[in-house]
Amino acid sequence: MAAARFEMTPIGFVSSPYKQPAHVPKGLGAKHEAEGILEINPDLELGLTDIEGFSHLFVLWIFDRTEGFQLLGTPPSDNRPHGIFATRSPRRPNPIGLTVVELLGRSGPKLQVRGIDMLDGTPILDIKPYLSSIPPDQLRTGWLGEAEEEARNAR
Amino acid sequence: MAAARFEMTPIGFVSSPYKQPAHVPKGLGAKHEAEGILEINPDLELGLTDIEGFSHLFVLWIFDRTEGFQLLGTPPSDNRPHGIFATRSPRRPNPIGLTVVELLGRSGPKLQVRGIDMLDGTPILDIKPYLSSIPPDQLRTGWLGEAEEEARNAR
Repeated sequence: MAAARFEMTPIGFVSSPYKQPAHVPKGLGAKHEAEGILEINPDLELGLTDIEGFSHLFVLWIFDRTEGFQLLGTPPSDNRPHGIFATRSPRRPNPIGLTVVELLGRSGPKLQVRGIDMLDGTPILDIKPYLSSIPPDQLRTGWLGEAEEEARNAR
Repeated sequence: MAAARFEMTPIGFVSSPYKQPAHVPKGLGAKHEAEGILEINPDLELGLTDIEGFSHLFVLWIFDRTEGFQLLGTPPSDNRPHGIFATRSPRRPNPIGLTVVELLGRSGPKLQVRGIDMLDGTPILDIKPYLSSIPPDQLRTGWLGEAEEEARNAR
């Protein structure tokens, strides 16, 4: 199949307390409890109808301050290299980020949320409702689970 | 902030038993247990290193057989209209789909997975590890939860 290209335009921007990459908590045990605003384009406000009923949302966004990609890299949560598709690292072939946030409230086209890990001004591509979870006893988390266990044992 | 545009190129394609939109299970109680293959571009195979350790993956993909978007629409799981960002409907401003799949195995650049709801030939934009879940007792699912309860009561 021929390689196609798809063009994306932001539906809005993140208003975040993180102004620089170094401000975003990273690595093992990093907590993402920062509050911020998803400022959606007012022309698209109708698309937010009934979103208040959901406690959690998926936010798809662009790593817009990252250049190029690296197929193998060492993430902040480990000292061994892993494939980019087995990490959440920014330097991806398509630099799309995915964050689950808790929806605290809405004021017109602005969504107040908790749990952001994006930089201030980050372009948002899409918002989707979070509908169900994989039960913890069915989840294996590979190298990250191993790194977390090593960190616990080293304490 | 000026409206930017971002160009995406597929990292691979889905091999799916669903050849037509009508084949994909939709609506309340739809089960997505179909197996398929995520066929990643062999040039990007190094990016899959260590992915076998994860039981579940996020797949980001393109609704490539959908034209235009609709801010308010009635999804197959309800008889009332909802905002596009409160549904998983295809007709989104940026037509990106998000599916959680179970990873069954890997053969080079091919990932065998369960739980696909994409059509055969769907372009894949990104794959990320599924790391943690929102506990069910903290999750509210808005109009969908209401529609599910109404369907249960009507039985």
